[in-house]
Amino acid sequence: MFVLVNLKTYPCDPVEVAAAVRDVNDATDARLAVAPQAAHIERVAETGVETWAQHVDAIEHGSNTGHALAESVADAGAVGTLINHSERRLKLADIDGAVRAAKRADLETIVCANNPAQIGAAAALGPDAVAVEPPALIGTGTPVSQADPDVVENAVEAAANVDSSVSVLCGAGISTGDDVVAAGDLGAEGVLLASGVAKADDPQSALEDLVEPL
Amino acid sequence: MFVLVNLKTYPCDPVEVAAAVRDVNDATDARLAVAPQAAHIERVAETGVETWAQHVDAIEHGSNTGHALAESVADAGAVGTLINHSERRLKLADIDGAVRAAKRADLETIVCANNPAQIGAAAALGPDAVAVEPPALIGTGTPVSQADPDVVENAVEAAANVDSSVSVLCGAGISTGDDVVAAGDLGAEGVLLASGVAKADDPQSALEDLVEPL
Amino acid sequence: MFVLVNLKTYPCDPVEVAAAVRDVNDATDARLAVAPQAAHIERVAETGVETWAQHVDAIEHGSNTGHALAESVADAGAVGTLINHSERRLKLADIDGAVRAAKRADLETIVCANNPAQIGAAAALGPDAVAVEPPALIGTGTPVSQADPDVVENAVEAAANVDSSVSVLCGAGISTGDDVVAAGDLGAEGVLLASGVAKADDPQSALEDLVEPL
Amino acid sequence: MFVLVNLKTYPCDPVEVAAAVRDVNDATDARLAVAPQAAHIERVAETGVETWAQHVDAIEHGSNTGHALAESVADAGAVGTLINHSERRLKLADIDGAVRAAKRADLETIVCANNPAQIGAAAALGPDAVAVEPPALIGTGTPVSQADPDVVENAVEAAANVDSSVSVLCGAGISTGDDVVAAGDLGAEGVLLASGVAKADDPQSALEDLVEPL
Repeated sequence: MFVLVNLKTYPCDPVEVAAAVRDVNDATDARLAVAPQAAHIERVAETGVETWAQHVDAIEHGSNTGHALAESVADAGAVGTLINHSERRLKLADIDGAVRAAKRADLETIVCANNPAQIGAAAALGPDAVAVEPPALIGTGTPVSQADPDVVENAVEAAANVDSSVSVLCGAGISTGDDVVAAGDLGAEGVLLASGVAKADDPQSALEDLVEPL
Repeated sequence: MFVLVNLKTYPCDPVEVAAAVRDVNDATDARLAVAPQAAHIERVAETGVETWAQHVDAIEHGSNTGHALAESVADAGAVGTLINHSERRLKLADIDGAVRAAKRADLETIVCANNPAQIGAAAALGPDAVAVEPPALIGTGTPVSQADPDVVENAVEAAANVDSSVSVLCGAGISTGDDVVAAGDLGAEGVLLASGVAKADDPQSALEDLVEPL
Repeated sequence: MFVLVNLKTYPCDPVEVAAAVRDVNDATDARLAVAPQAAHIERVAETGVETWAQHVDAIEHGSNTGHALAESVADAGAVGTLINHSERRLKLADIDGAVRAAKRADLETIVCANNPAQIGAAAALGPDAVAVEPPALIGTGTPVSQADPDVVENAVEAAANVDSSVSVLCGAGISTGDDVVAAGDLGAEGVLLASGVAKADDPQSALEDLVEPL
Repeated sequence: MFVLVNLKTYPCDPVEVAAAVRDVNDATDARLAVAPQAAHIERVAETGVETWAQHVDAIEHGSNTGHALAESVADAGAVGTLINHSERRLKLADIDGAVRAAKRADLETIVCANNPAQIGAAAALGPDAVAVEPPALIGTGTPVSQADPDVVENAVEAAANVDSSVSVLCGAGISTGDDVVAAGDLGAEGVLLASGVAKADDPQSALEDLVEPL
């Protein structure tokens, strides 16, 4: 399983969480990574943890003040990027452009979407993976794998129908190892986490509990 | 073939073009329709022509000042709507929401996109049709069926791969009957037109030439 | 006082509300107008009521599929337009462009904003009027003139500091005649209303109560 | 004079340009700074140069995946930020929110705008400075101070009319020391530069020429 910890713009210490993710990654068979804000990518990557960007724009080198160029987050140490997170939704043409920009910079890609129909659409753009996160469940603590297991299974089916080489992850409300196991049983190859780890009093302990059943 | 004449915000008389579209429709086997601006839908529909909206928003009845509600364009006389035209691109989640809003109001739907990958994505959202319009060819007078025939064939294949019940139209640069015939030969079931008719000195004559070879 | 009834995308009959606004306007010294959706402007204007658009885009005649051209809403019968309503916020450059587009089409303009600082900014763009509507109060039934009278007085002062020829209106939560009088006492020359009239069982009666103390 | 070198998403080495800006700053009375992409802020700030962000979002700590939090760019070493650059235009309410977010994080603020009317609007939001950059001149090599001196003088007047404590900078096409002097003569207290330095074969030499007449 792939476990990506999204730090959003939480008031956590990104380096402290990154070090915890790195240490738990080294002690488990699961693959763990962390997605800090753009301005924190460099210091996070320096911990040795697998580092992802939260967003890249559908742009090339040029006159694009204030945008996130795939090459610049790669320079800073990112090896992958989220695209179209529900808190940073993009136009369809720009998701397509961002996936291509990320590939150009050798970044792995996960395109997020809200429901199985949109997951099918995202898969058609050729990312490495898609992630289904029903907006109503984000931040609730109720895991998608429990509240709405059909959405995960239907997302897996929708992606496979379009392009069977695209992996499916799920997110929203996942905070325990049982949630991760349940997501895997529904066909997900990974999970997106956020507050459950980033806002935990002891992120390392929260992660250890999370990967324990894997 | 379905021929949809998009009036954009051109300085044409929408009722005059609508009457021409209606009259040519009545004299041919092709299906012709016109898409005026929202504020002109009512007067255009009153001519008896098949009338389409240029856009609807991903909203329901409620507090959405300044947005286009599917039910309101249907009230005014529209029977279908373009969604995600290259001049009015939407977020992926909003294309999904707009398609569902249009269905709720019994509007037929055409989702536009730039290339075959995006056409596959659009088809995954379940519209009645998709339309491929390479941005570089819009307004050029060089028909997509001639400048880039592969893009039409690949779009037909991409849509069929995702959902074979979704029709494929094409647009960009189409202005003659030969262009329409060529589009059909490449697998398109219809075309989007704009300046070739809306800006013609004699829209009726331009349309007659266009449908003559059909 | 100017009373503008915004129909948003409410499930009301726009012609019925328009007729009520027209009849009450004829029986009072206040100036009443109604702002329907774009696709309903024509049928609303035909009642004889003063009709406003809810939005126009910062565009000219041309290739702008799915946008609201100032000339087209004027054609349909609108004499003014809201710009930058809190439910249809625009980029600064586009508010500027929309004000200029509206002037080009002889539409009166009201630019909405959330607080006194933004009201000063809006006034600097030269509209006929600005309207302050604190987002937290919209739809609450608690009038801004009561919940936060300072925001109205400070908005009046902010606008006057930039351009004393720009009128100030207020909105958010206004539903009674006393609210309107209170707004006037704070320096507002008009009010924006929505659900209090548009969702009333008897819009005419709601309006009569509203203008009675004027 | 304040000279801010905007690196946009140019394919330059941000550390090399930063070192040149730092060295020329140390050898002149002018104040020089550099604005790299978010992911490069940390490495640029480590050179000791005054470092600015190209953009911050109107957000606080929380669930804002893919956005630029003022505190995070400050953490990484930025001491100021551009807001509403013509390549990253914001909604009026978000310019207001971004200025307040930047102040909360002790970042200096420059709000960009296209023309004197928008400069007045920007000044009303209380930034430290505004910068007028006519879009038609950006990247042309024709300096605004020469092509359109009135726009600089009118911007200075518009800002002063709203809030005399707000400084005015100008940009677009500035590449020589004479351009900077001319901008100062028109009332500007600083300039925004981009390609003239960032794309120069020898950025240090280009900067030395630029500040020589000051």
